[in-house]
Order: sequence, then structure tokens, then C-alpha cells
Amino acid sequence: MADNPSFVLRAVNDVAYEQRPIPEISADQVLVEVKKTGICGSDVHYLVEGRIGHFVVKSPMVLGHESAGIVAKVGPDVRHLKVGDRVALEPGATCRKCDACKSGKYELCPDIVFAATPPYDGTLARYYRLPEDLAFPLPENVSLEDGAMIEPLAVGIHSVANLGTFRTNQSIAVFGCGPVGLLCMAVAKALGASRIIAIDINPARLDFAKSYAATDVYLPPKFEEGETKPEYSKRNADKMKADVGIEERGHKAIDLVIDASGAEVSIQTALHISKSGGTVVQVGMGNPNVTIDIGQLTTKELNYKGSFRYGAGDYPLAIALVAQGKIDLKPLVTHRYTFDQAIAAFQATRVGKSEDGRGVIKAMISGPDFPADAA
Amino acid sequence: MADNPSFVLRAVNDVAYEQRPIPEISADQVLVEVKKTGICGSDVHYLVEGRIGHFVVKSPMVLGHESAGIVAKVGPDVRHLKVGDRVALEPGATCRKCDACKSGKYELCPDIVFAATPPYDGTLARYYRLPEDLAFPLPENVSLEDGAMIEPLAVGIHSVANLGTFRTNQSIAVFGCGPVGLLCMAVAKALGASRIIAIDINPARLDFAKSYAATDVYLPPKFEEGETKPEYSKRNADKMKADVGIEERGHKAIDLVIDASGAEVSIQTALHISKSGGTVVQVGMGNPNVTIDIGQLTTKELNYKGSFRYGAGDYPLAIALVAQGKIDLKPLVTHRYTFDQAIAAFQATRVGKSEDGRGVIKAMISGPDFPADAA
Amino acid sequence: MADNPSFVLRAVNDVAYEQRPIPEISADQVLVEVKKTGICGSDVHYLVEGRIGHFVVKSPMVLGHESAGIVAKVGPDVRHLKVGDRVALEPGATCRKCDACKSGKYELCPDIVFAATPPYDGTLARYYRLPEDLAFPLPENVSLEDGAMIEPLAVGIHSVANLGTFRTNQSIAVFGCGPVGLLCMAVAKALGASRIIAIDINPARLDFAKSYAATDVYLPPKFEEGETKPEYSKRNADKMKADVGIEERGHKAIDLVIDASGAEVSIQTALHISKSGGTVVQVGMGNPNVTIDIGQLTTKELNYKGSFRYGAGDYPLAIALVAQGKIDLKPLVTHRYTFDQAIAAFQATRVGKSEDGRGVIKAMISGPDFPADAA
Amino acid sequence: MADNPSFVLRAVNDVAYEQRPIPEISADQVLVEVKKTGICGSDVHYLVEGRIGHFVVKSPMVLGHESAGIVAKVGPDVRHLKVGDRVALEPGATCRKCDACKSGKYELCPDIVFAATPPYDGTLARYYRLPEDLAFPLPENVSLEDGAMIEPLAVGIHSVANLGTFRTNQSIAVFGCGPVGLLCMAVAKALGASRIIAIDINPARLDFAKSYAATDVYLPPKFEEGETKPEYSKRNADKMKADVGIEERGHKAIDLVIDASGAEVSIQTALHISKSGGTVVQVGMGNPNVTIDIGQLTTKELNYKGSFRYGAGDYPLAIALVAQGKIDLKPLVTHRYTFDQAIAAFQATRVGKSEDGRGVIKAMISGPDFPADAA
Repeated sequence: MADNPSFVLRAVNDVAYEQRPIPEISADQVLVEVKKTGICGSDVHYLVEGRIGHFVVKSPMVLGHESAGIVAKVGPDVRHLKVGDRVALEPGATCRKCDACKSGKYELCPDIVFAATPPYDGTLARYYRLPEDLAFPLPENVSLEDGAMIEPLAVGIHSVANLGTFRTNQSIAVFGCGPVGLLCMAVAKALGASRIIAIDINPARLDFAKSYAATDVYLPPKFEEGETKPEYSKRNADKMKADVGIEERGHKAIDLVIDASGAEVSIQTALHISKSGGTVVQVGMGNPNVTIDIGQLTTKELNYKGSFRYGAGDYPLAIALVAQGKIDLKPLVTHRYTFDQAIAAFQATRVGKSEDGRGVIKAMISGPDFPADAA
Repeated sequence: MADNPSFVLRAVNDVAYEQRPIPEISADQVLVEVKKTGICGSDVHYLVEGRIGHFVVKSPMVLGHESAGIVAKVGPDVRHLKVGDRVALEPGATCRKCDACKSGKYELCPDIVFAATPPYDGTLARYYRLPEDLAFPLPENVSLEDGAMIEPLAVGIHSVANLGTFRTNQSIAVFGCGPVGLLCMAVAKALGASRIIAIDINPARLDFAKSYAATDVYLPPKFEEGETKPEYSKRNADKMKADVGIEERGHKAIDLVIDASGAEVSIQTALHISKSGGTVVQVGMGNPNVTIDIGQLTTKELNYKGSFRYGAGDYPLAIALVAQGKIDLKPLVTHRYTFDQAIAAFQATRVGKSEDGRGVIKAMISGPDFPADAA
Repeated sequence: MADNPSFVLRAVNDVAYEQRPIPEISADQVLVEVKKTGICGSDVHYLVEGRIGHFVVKSPMVLGHESAGIVAKVGPDVRHLKVGDRVALEPGATCRKCDACKSGKYELCPDIVFAATPPYDGTLARYYRLPEDLAFPLPENVSLEDGAMIEPLAVGIHSVANLGTFRTNQSIAVFGCGPVGLLCMAVAKALGASRIIAIDINPARLDFAKSYAATDVYLPPKFEEGETKPEYSKRNADKMKADVGIEERGHKAIDLVIDASGAEVSIQTALHISKSGGTVVQVGMGNPNVTIDIGQLTTKELNYKGSFRYGAGDYPLAIALVAQGKIDLKPLVTHRYTFDQAIAAFQATRVGKSEDGRGVIKAMISGPDFPADAA
Repeated sequence: MADNPSFVLRAVNDVAYEQRPIPEISADQVLVEVKKTGICGSDVHYLVEGRIGHFVVKSPMVLGHESAGIVAKVGPDVRHLKVGDRVALEPGATCRKCDACKSGKYELCPDIVFAATPPYDGTLARYYRLPEDLAFPLPENVSLEDGAMIEPLAVGIHSVANLGTFRTNQSIAVFGCGPVGLLCMAVAKALGASRIIAIDINPARLDFAKSYAATDVYLPPKFEEGETKPEYSKRNADKMKADVGIEERGHKAIDLVIDASGAEVSIQTALHISKSGGTVVQVGMGNPNVTIDIGQLTTKELNYKGSFRYGAGDYPLAIALVAQGKIDLKPLVTHRYTFDQAIAAFQATRVGKSEDGRGVIKAMISGPDFPADAA
């Protein structure tokens, strides 16, 4: 196809389809015809707020970064891909020269060009170009839709397997049962967790978590009158320990706690239920200012780590676990839209359900001229 | 000597000298005649508040835990010590059987018997008993006073060398220039730091830090009217970056940040000045509820770790660095008292200066019948 | 029972049943009535050679160290066990005070008291005493026979999960399909290996490995006339790469190689098939003098590690994986004997098959008065 | 200058000066006018043997890879360098896309373009081109000659600080007192070693090691008649333990052993003197087939690692330690030659001394038209 229709964020709550030039590729790049793109909370956030932290949308930007597609063109130095290959796209191209890149932590490259993070355009277009090594071939039994889901799965891999150094027979608790939280659970299950505790304030999401990957679920209680957040969180932690059976004194408490909610009381509770010497990984983001109890941090020598996107080895491991059948991504795709229906996909993601009342976990948008229900 | 005079905390702000029975030792223990004991902020805290977090003084307790002395008696199974040996005392005896003890993290043993942490008696007495392996022989060129200082130095070793994994040519910033902060700087210097930045709100303490171990010092500005703590901390971090020359974008920012202040704005600032992928170690403790910016944690993938006391290898490394002359503990001992003057030592530590106006870094109390100025 | 019949090695090839005193236990020990003991190659080695390396049998010694039983008596300080508990025995009691013990590497304790390693008696008796924390309660669905198998399984855990840092989706090759090699494969499978390649010169053992845990098997070729061992090993490695499909240039070569054979050509081949930056763990032991190609070690930056027994966390993980059904130990127990038939069990293990011609993987001896076929 | 004289290896023992085209640079490369090049054993090896392992010189190749120079030209995308900058050259350009490159182990990149490793030309020419990030600016107090020495120093950094994970107060033993061995000692000293034991069969080299960085030196005994190498090595290790005072039973034995000799008996002895749980790093290379005692490896759980060139962070740390005065490279440069005298430099390095009888540690060749004695 000779055109490049693109779904562009022009200003806060102002999106439009535009024709953009088809990107030129350099010698070691490939041009991919995008077939599937999942909508992420960050896409919605840019749409509604125009910014995330210090990343501010100042000029029109194509949205979307969770994508898979088919190779349409390859540069002359490309060695491992050919036209027609089905690929998952890792949407962050790094400088490859800074200390972070050279020491194996490329997610921290200060010069990363990341899709749909201002000022860089995203993948909701017919075409997206990227370096050869960031287009990962999909095994036959991994669909294009699965391929688009590799991006959020890689976030889970990075948080659980990489930063969380999660190992077989360890226990995990995950706060927040949105796509990232669920995928963290899926990774823990694939890695052989002895126990996976899901926490959410929405009972329907807990039901889904239980059916998907959790071994235990926990619904936090309501606030009591006059209770402060730290008081609530201590009570919440004690209740959880009793309800789901987390033993005391650090001996069989939780090895790894993931906060995929960004909620202050979740983070506070996370520190209480972590074992002595345990790790808490922060992957979710809400209001940045969060009050924590550093007494928990010090007396238990906790390791509280921030997780950002994904890095070396995360995409390959994500694809392998899906190909081996250890992770099933299909149940998470609850809604499918054509390229022309992108606004409806964003709207459903924003409010958490579609017009017919069905709850959204992940909404998927097909590429131009690609059917919504093609996989 | 056949008696055992002891300095006992009986209730909040109520201390007295009591005669206690001389401890019986078991086969693998030693009885040590305590010669020097440094006063720690936690000792003062128990005196004034009767508790630290969930550790509550419910019955009379001997104070003191930073001590050195001379072996007075050895059990029949003791192999490496004999009567008359000069030793530094590691004041926490662990169970040696739990997962924490067996996996090399004995500081997290839930059954630790720690001197002057309720309900266990401390070392401000003529005699203290402990397992053989916790009494570390002092090389000839390490004095008994140095020996008592090994305890707080081990806290610095644990925070910087062990949890902080600090390596030669890395940079460090330390918030708080009390004994622990200064000893963290001393450890960083001994390990070959390229740069040691000391931060404190007291200019005199900064001067001392500069003369002792810091390469750079930074005095934070005053609050501006209407400024929130997070706003102040961001401004403080920006000013520090400019004033002492911390480069942007993670490339040459600080490798390791230690908070030895426990102050909320210090911790907030610490997260701002840490490099991407850097480590922040929390060793100080003030009000436990601290508001942090988790956006810093996630986008920079920081590692925010709590540090608790000390563990495997910390005492031996502390003693070695002193014996090799890489760390000089003498400048930190600003005040010396006889056993009978213990109340004056506590009073000076509590207000931060002695009656003659001299600022206290570390006050040292000699054992019974041992002169204050003996080293 | 008031007696303590014991199976004693008196000299090379000279064993006898003797009555030994029932061991006295100290306050934190338990006395266990041994119900099942597996025979290990090292037991046979002591019987036939009277020594392993610098461990020499100089006075009569009870044999056996792979055991499970029932708690018969507990010391007054025992907190986690009671009479009647079914337990697996970890047969090495350490000093708990040396640097190795305190730093989480207790398997390297120079003062370890290890069952059936001279001069210490083993477990082939009615009773064995050990510290409480070395008697691990067996979950209901783990039999006493499984319990005895936990010991060799812990060797596999130590080599693969602990020293080998094996992770989900990695590939492994194991040289030698005896009990330890097979259990290394079982561990790799439980941990989510993408590929498990078994190598042995005995086709029947390869068949068993394939049915048990291996995804691929490889039968090395015969020596060619005039070929040196290094030449053979290079040819063997090239053939294996071609036959089972190991890719070149380090990109998809083997992540972890275990040598559980002790054979020189296996070790040489292991270095050739390991990926760049890979790990080779030596757990088997034959002739100690082995010629290796250090060019492989350096240009590929291999990590060649020795594995010795097991350490912190290995027993608990072994028991958990069996209880969770991720590892099935039953197929490995090929022969069962009563206590009175111990000599027959050793004989079968020594020659590798019983009188009826069936190959031995693991021979199990019941405790006194316990039926051979009780589990 | 408009020409590019180059020192070319045409065949075994056949070298000649040739004019080569001045290299074209791409957008992110720099062209460096080479001013100083040290001669390495590998350069001599290619000259004399035409190969090292499977690297075979099949067509004429410019020699040299230990170099520093002055930036002569920069590509349009170069951001951190300008014409006239003095730089040390890291002579291996990697693909930046493979798993090794992305995971922080770029020294294992299978597509590395390494100077003077066939088929790639080296640095003994007027000009050498390389990517911007491999040309490291030299601080003012680091000379061009120091800059050329950064390459072998980086080998020492990689072996000791990186793979050896050497830390302050640890002990080290280094077999072989050539340039790499001496630089490993210098690194250990800069990192705060408690003890540095140098071993060599040449007393003059031991004297130099003692004057340079070693705290102890050890001269191995001669072989006794009929003694095998393993027997000799065991005796050698016992003698060394007694002579220099290495304690038994793993408690105070050597933390890190470096073999920079490649000699079989050195490697055998290295395993004997390493502490339990210790690390042995192989950096030297002689006859690849070496017989080792795997009983040492297993019962002590040694970690025997190969070291290859250098990787992430090694050059920056090397330069920093020299700039801070913690490592003095000047004493190692014993011989200096003009570009026209290159053959004499190779000859002296090959025989180990110059015609006047002075022993060679490092021979340095200046670039074309640059005086031999300019620093």
C-alpha cells in the first residue's frame, strides 16, 4: 500500500486520522506493516492529560506502542528478517553507545526513541520502522494479536523475572488486576510460583485473576471513619495475612510483591506483607507522591525497586513462554476494533468498559484494512 | 572483680546503677569485662521515649551496645580466644538455625538477642557474655576505644560496602553528618570513592565532614514560604546538582546515596540526585511516614534499600580497615566519661553538646573502674 | 525399640551388623528412627576402596547418608518437631560459627559432621541424631522413600538451581544419566527448561532419561584409532551440535552444562558445547586429573564451577518441588531391600544391576524391622 | 598528513611498511592519528606463528592494538569529541545488536571487529578509525603513553575488578609477572587489596613486582626427578602456603587467584591455594590443554572463570584509576621506539630483552613522525 494513514493525537482530547509519509528506512532497519495494536493506559493518559510526568505532548504525535505486524521492507544490511515475516515490535530504539546501553540496562538509555512517548510517533499507522533487532519473529503458534500483547507481557517479565529475580517455588502478591498486574501473575505462574495472591478493589477483576493465574485473591476492606492511610494499610495488611494465611516473623511471608496499581494504600500494604529481605517492585504509577513507612524498609531490609518498561532478554523470554504454552494471552483481549474505530477503543479503555457494559482488560485495534477479528 | 555494677533504664527518664548477677557462660561463650561503650542515638531514644517502633521497654534493661573489652572467662569449647584478649563485641546473638541465619542474612534473624533492645540487657555493666565468634580480637594497633567504635562503623560497612555494593571509583552522597553518616563517608573513602558529598543543615558538622572524609559538602537552602516538601526537595536537588556539579541525564550522577538523616526532605532529595539505575540506602530513621516520589523510583529504576544493623563479614572488614589505617576512628570520639558519669554522657548526646558547649559526635563511657581517658 | 543395630564398614570390603549405643541427644537435637536409606556411589566407594580423596576410613564407620525416618525423641529446646513426625534427614551438621556458615555457604564449613564421611557414622542404623533444623518434615503426599531421595535431589538442586542459577526457558545438557544426572534433569524440568539434553554411553540409560525428563538424548560415538582425548572431544562436540541441533557462535548454544559423569571426555566436550558466557557445573567425580582446553574457558569466558553436596535452601526447595508434583522421584527407585539385605543392595549398586539382571538406578534399604516395600 | 604508512604482517615472520588508504569514517566515527602503540604478546605471536588458536592470518594485516592518539577528524553525528582531543583507543568495535552486546557482555559479541585480530587491521599506522564511544578522552595528567597502556590495564580491570569481583581488603595471588600480571596486581592494589602475592620463575621479575605492587613474592622450586606435574604443583602449593603464610582450611586462604602465565603448573597450583568458595581467573594462555584437579574444584566449590579482553566499564575505570594516581603505568614502559624501529620493538618483546640486555616489560612504538621519547 502506498499510503500511511495514522491515528494522531493533536492536542488534549483531540485525535484525528492523518496521512503521514511512509518512513524511509536505513540500512539496518525494517519497515513493518502494523497489524495489531493494543491500547495502553499511557496512550489514554496522553489523550486525556497531554502528559505523563515530564513527558509532555507539544506537537501532534501518532499514538500506540503495543504492536505486531508483517515486515514490508528490509534495509540492505538486515540479516535475520525478510519481507513477509510476522514480528512483534519492541518500540524503544536506544543509542547503543551510552553507559546504560553498554552495561546491559538499555531501558535507561537517556536517548531512547520510544513509540508514542513525546516527541516520537507511535505505531497506530499503517507503517512503523525500527532497527532489525527490535522486530522479533513470531513462532507459528503465536498470533499477531499475541504479538501485540508481547509488549505488556515484557513489562511483566521485566518486573517479575528480571528485576524481581523471581524463582520457582517463590510466592508473589500482585496489587492491581489490570493488564500489567495480570501479566505479572502469568509470568509468576510460568516461572513456577508456589503461590500467587491477587489484590484488587474490584471483585469482578479478582474473579478474572483467579480464573487466569492467581492461586488466592484478596479484596481489601473499606476505610473506617477517621482512619489515616497508614493506619488503614496496617489493618489491611494484618487482615490479608490472616485471611489468606501469610505467616509471621518473615519466615513464610511473601517473597516478591508487585505494585501494579499505583495506589498509595497498596504500596503501603505491600511493604507490610513483604518478607524480611524481600523485594517490592513498583511498576504501576498513579499520584507520584506516596507516603511509605521507612521503618518497614529498614527493619526488614526491603529492596524497593522501580521498574521501567523492559530491557535485555525480556522480549525473547516473553515470546518463548507464549510459544511454549506457559502463558496464554488470549483471555486478556476483551475488545477488538478496526483501525477506523480507534476512538471507540480509547473510549472503552478510558472508562473501563464498552458501551455494552462489558469490562475492558485489553482493547486491540487492527491496522488499516485489517479486520478487527483477524488474529 | 566479683561484682557487676550495671547502668539500668528503669522507666522513661529513670536510670540507676544496680548490681546485677555476673552472667553464667555456656560452653562456647566468653565473659567479657567491658572497657569502653559508645552512646548511640537509640540508647538515648529508649531513655527518653521508652521505645523505638514496636520495641518497647517493659521492664528494667541495662543500656549500651557499642562496646569493647577484655576477655575475663572462656567456656570449655572456646577455641579462638583466651583470657586477656582485647575484643570488640558484636552485640547481636542469633539463632543460627532459621532461613535468614543459614542463608547469610543473619541480621534478619527473628530471634536475635540484641544488647539493649528490649527485653535484652546491654553492655553498660562490668560484664557482658556472648558467643565466642561474636567477640572479635583487636589487632595491636586498634585501641579499646576504636574497638567500641567498630559497632557504628559496621553499620557504615553494611550500608556502603555490603548493601550498597559500593566499588572503587564510584561516587557517593551522604545525607546527615552524625556518627553513622560520617562513618559511611569513611567507608566510602577507604573503598576508593571518586567523590564523597556530605549534606547537613548544620554548617559546623559539614566542616567536620570535610576535614574527615568528604570531598564536597552541601548546605541545603531554607524553605520558601508556601513551598511543599516535595517542591522544596526538587529545588534542593536542582541546586545541589548545580552547586557541586552533578551532571544531568543519569550519566555522571551519584552512584550510591545514603540517607543517614531520616529526614523526609533528605530522602526526597536523595531520590532526585541518584543516577538512573542507582541505589539509595536508608539507614537513618526519624518519623517513619515519609512521602516519596515513586516517579523517580520507576523512571530511573532506582533500588531503594533498607539497612538494618550489620551482618556477615561486616565486623571483620571494619576491624581490618581500621588496622590498615584506611579508617581513623579517633576524631569521632569527642567526649569521654567514667562509668559513674554515664548520665552526663547521655545528656550530652541527647542535646548534641556538652555543658562546655562542645558539639558531641560520639560520647564514650568507660567500664567500671576504668579511667575515662584510657584508650 | 531399645536397641540400635547398625551396618558398619570395618575395613575394605568388610561390613557387619553391630549393636551400637543409642545416641544421646542434646537440647536442640532430635533422635530419628531411620526408615529408608538410599545407597550412593560414595557409600560403595568407601566399601570397595576405603577412601574418597583425602577422606580415609581409619576406624569402623556406620554407612549410609540418604535417609528419612520418624522422630523418636526430641530435646527440650526443640520447637518445630514432635515425636512421630516424618522427616527427611540432611546429613551434614555444621559449626554455624565460621565464615562459611555465617555467609550462607555452610556446605564449605571445615568442621562439618557429615554422615558416613570418615570419621563420622552414617544413617544405616535404627537411630540417627541430628539438630532439629536438619530434620525436614515431609508433607503428607511425600513418602518416606521420597524423603530418602531428597538427599540426592538436593545435590541436583544445588548444582542446577543454586550454583547453576538456572532459569525458566534456559537450555541444559547433562553428562551422565546416573541418579545425580537424572535428578539434575528433573530439577531443570521443574524449573521450566526449554531443552534438556541427556548424554550417556549407555543407550538403556538414555532411554530412561528420555522417558523421565530429557527432551533430547545423545549417544557419543566410539573412539577412532589414534585419536587423542581432546581430538575425540572436539569431534564429539561437533557431532552433538549437528545431531541435536545446537546453533553456532554462542547465540543459541547451551546455557548450562552439568557434568555428572566425572569422565574426562565428558568434561572436555562440555566446554565445547557451552555457550559464550555460559556455566559448566562439575558435580561428578572420577579420576581427579582431567585435561581441559583453557582456550575454550578464556575465549568464551566460561564459568566452570565445582559443586559440593548442598547448602542453604536446597532441602526445602527439593521437598517443595516433590510435594507440588513437579518432580517425581518414584521411577528412580528400582530396587528395595530390608535392613538385613543391605549387602545385596551394595552389591547391586556396585555392579549396576541386581542378580535378576535389572539395571539399578537407586537401591533403597529399609530400617530395621521395616518392610522393604513400605514406602 | 595525507598519507597512511602502516606496519603490515604479510606472512609468518614477514613484515613491511606499506602505504594504506586513509580510512573513510561514517557519521558516528572518528579518525584518530595514532601516537603511541604498545606491543603485546599476541602481536608477536601472530608475527611468529601466523595464528592464535582458530584466528589465522590469511592475508596481510596491520599489527598493533594497544594505542592512543589524537582525534584528526570527526563524523557529523559525533557529539562528545572534537579534532585535537587526546584519546585512548578501545580496539574492538561490536555489533551492538546481539544478545551479548545488549546484555552487557559485549566482549563476547561474535561479530566484533578487533584490531590486529585477523582479518581486521590494527593500529600500527598513522590513522585508525573507530566509533566515537570507543575513543576515550584522556584527562590532562594522563599521557599518550599512559593512554596506550590503558588497553592492557583494561585486561587487568576486567579480570580483577569485573570478573574477579575483587573487593577492598581481599587477598590476591597472581601467577606470572609479565605486563598483564603486573597490571592485575596494580588493579588489586588500587582496589585496596590486603595482600598481593606475585609468583614467577624469574627472580628479576619478582623483584620488579615487589617494587611495583606486590606485598609478597614467591619463587617456585625446581622440579624433582620423577615428579609429575600434579605432584609438583601440590608440593609447590604446600611450600607457598608455608613460605608466605597462607592459612589452612579455607579460612584465610586466597580470595582471588589470577593465572596470567598460561603455564600448566601455575594453574594447578592456583587451584590448590584458592580458598574454599574462591575464584580463579584465567587470563593467560599457553598450551591450551591443561590438566587440572577437579577434586579441588568440587570439594572447595571453586569458580574457575575465563577472562577475554575487556567489556563494559573497563576502559573508564582504568582511565580513572590512572588519573587519580592510584595506578602508575610509567614504570612498565621499559623500551621506546620510533615508528621506523618497529621491527626492533617486536624483536625485543619476542626475546624478552633488548640488544643492550635490558629486560622488556612493555615496548612502546610511536606513530609516524612522532618521537620515541615523547610521552
